Amino acid sequence: MALHHLEDFAVGQTFSAGPLRIEEDDIKRFAGEFDPQPFHLDNEAAGNSFFRGLAASGWHTAAITMRLLVGSDIRPAGGIIGAGFEELRWPRPVRPGDALHIESEVLEVRPSRSKPEQGMVKVRTTTLNQKNETVQVSVGNLVVFRRPPTA
Amino acid sequence: MALHHLEDFAVGQTFSAGPLRIEEDDIKRFAGEFDPQPFHLDNEAAGNSFFRGLAASGWHTAAITMRLLVGSDIRPAGGIIGAGFEELRWPRPVRPGDALHIESEVLEVRPSRSKPEQGMVKVRTTTLNQKNETVQVSVGNLVVFRRPPTA
Repeated sequence: MALHHLEDFAVGQTFSAGPLRIEEDDIKRFAGEFDPQPFHLDNEAAGNSFFRGLAASGWHTAAITMRLLVGSDIRPAGGIIGAGFEELRWPRPVRPGDALHIESEVLEVRPSRSKPEQGMVKVRTTTLNQKNETVQVSVGNLVVFRRPPTA
Repeated sequence: MALHHLEDFAVGQTFSAGPLRIEEDDIKRFAGEFDPQPFHLDNEAAGNSFFRGLAASGWHTAAITMRLLVGSDIRPAGGIIGAGFEELRWPRPVRPGDALHIESEVLEVRPSRSKPEQGMVKVRTTTLNQKNETVQVSVGNLVVFRRPPTA
């Protein structure tokens, strides 16, 4: 598969990847290291929490989304370099056994004013479970390099 | 330490935590699972990349920031429940051996109109390295419960 430079991106392009299944053990291991709260670690405590059952850390969902994006056809030539996000939300929890997939859409492509060799591609990535329910929405800007001039 | 209800939060309050050190092995292990790109996995490839040296995945920095926030004095009664973020950016890469700490500030406190038992607390969390350089800025809303009426 070809690598993509800034010139290859256009508003409306879409990329998808997945599914990737997340198990109860994965949820508890990630939470134990990065988000050690009862609703991510303990089934009984989770049942009595806001989430009404064991739920993955939102940061785990975000990390899995990144894994899927790296495996998608988006393939910017310099790698997927996130400059930052203007939106990141989790409308619904991720549960043990969920199988996640992503749908990404290019919202904007713009050359950099100050750095002639690069630009920004704004991408919305929606992460969905096996019932096609949205579990995460992100809108972020990737740093993407322009095609080098041919010799 | 007491748990905090919506009534306990006020604009301008600050919370801090850390430092937490991140090693080269941690960076490569996280990246291997969630963000397998050369600049997070391979020292030589990273030297020739946008990052000019091995850099942690931004999602790793975000996960460590969460870990620090869970250990801080913010302690909402129902746990730290992120509804979503309106800003998340990484102004500078995190390097092997960096020791990260966080500074959080309450920007807004508002009761929910539709759910009388809860509200939102908007928090800006800045993640800094051992040189006090900012490596991540996030602005997000936490779901926080109101104090239950006494019997």
